[in-house]
Amino acid sequence: MKLGRNVRIHDFVNLYGCEIGDDVKIGTFVEIQKGVKVGNRCKISSHSFICEGVTLEEGVFIGHNVTFTNDRYPRATNRHGELQTEADWKCVPTLVKRGASIGSGATLLCGITIGENAMIGAGSVVTKDVPAGATVAGNPARIV
Amino acid sequence: MKLGRNVRIHDFVNLYGCEIGDDVKIGTFVEIQKGVKVGNRCKISSHSFICEGVTLEEGVFIGHNVTFTNDRYPRATNRHGELQTEADWKCVPTLVKRGASIGSGATLLCGITIGENAMIGAGSVVTKDVPAGATVAGNPARIV
Amino acid sequence: MKLGRNVRIHDFVNLYGCEIGDDVKIGTFVEIQKGVKVGNRCKISSHSFICEGVTLEEGVFIGHNVTFTNDRYPRATNRHGELQTEADWKCVPTLVKRGASIGSGATLLCGITIGENAMIGAGSVVTKDVPAGATVAGNPARIV
Repeated sequence: MKLGRNVRIHDFVNLYGCEIGDDVKIGTFVEIQKGVKVGNRCKISSHSFICEGVTLEEGVFIGHNVTFTNDRYPRATNRHGELQTEADWKCVPTLVKRGASIGSGATLLCGITIGENAMIGAGSVVTKDVPAGATVAGNPARIV
Repeated sequence: MKLGRNVRIHDFVNLYGCEIGDDVKIGTFVEIQKGVKVGNRCKISSHSFICEGVTLEEGVFIGHNVTFTNDRYPRATNRHGELQTEADWKCVPTLVKRGASIGSGATLLCGITIGENAMIGAGSVVTKDVPAGATVAGNPARIV
Repeated sequence: MKLGRNVRIHDFVNLYGCEIGDDVKIGTFVEIQKGVKVGNRCKISSHSFICEGVTLEEGVFIGHNVTFTNDRYPRATNRHGELQTEADWKCVPTLVKRGASIGSGATLLCGITIGENAMIGAGSVVTKDVPAGATVAGNPARIV
């Protein structure tokens, strides 16, 4: 794990193998998996989950209880009925561009890009790319 | 923080600066922020997040994984690109009246009032006031 | 609590009174309540909540931040205004059949059966039975 300067991390967090930039705040009950890159001046609020494959550029706001995903067809086991391993699974990346804001309770499907300064409404389920500066909401999320 | 009599708090919680009434139960992985008021005989289930600006009257049920919000346009940084401080942000209040029940997985936008004994269905996204005694569900939540 | 062989449990979990099969993985910030049965080779991802009344057969995938429920009309207090006890409440069961996959951020209403190998899309709110092999998504979740 690589931590920038002036990073504030609350209690009960699970971070591993990620890169966190400068001046980042990370709330309680947050998990950030290996390979994640978090840019400078991001704020990641409590109860959120940021999985492998996610990149947050600078100044991104992640609300509370936000869930990212990285697998289109997740399964517990492979076709032989054994627990899946890294070999059975492909990580699909997601990019959140600078200044974007992901509202609390949002779920993001993988393989998408959230444009610069876009705003995702609370409780949205985001299934496709969001243009820069757009505001989206709903399930599936649409421009409002 | 001010705790009433006979409050039961589970492990792994993050409470600070809030007022909790008598006979309240608070589950695991709950965060309650400063300024929150929780009335007597409320039940707050695991994984829920209650932010600054929220008031729960008496006998309110908060399901599991419920998310409140208090900022209509959250951002990580201010217009100068610096991390936001308290000065850059206005807390929008939410009121849940006595006997109301917020179903698990619900997300509540801010600035709204949930009426007495109203019931919010599991997984709802509540975007506006809910009348007393009403049952709502969906995203956005509508009366059912 | 009864744990099978080769169970991997991460930090910050709250398990009690449940039965966990062999080769099960349980992520961070998970709560599993009493009476839950988890079959062999299930994977339960971080931030998920599995309540009393839920049975997972073999090889079930539970994504991150998944919420089960077991009470159709939850309330904090009974008709006399006192905190509810076990006597005021009926647990409604939910069954997830072998090989099913529950996407991250999904909420499941109670009293339903998720069929074998069914797939629940991320962020769905599942309100009724899902047939074997079906894929559902949305709020309420519908076959896609």
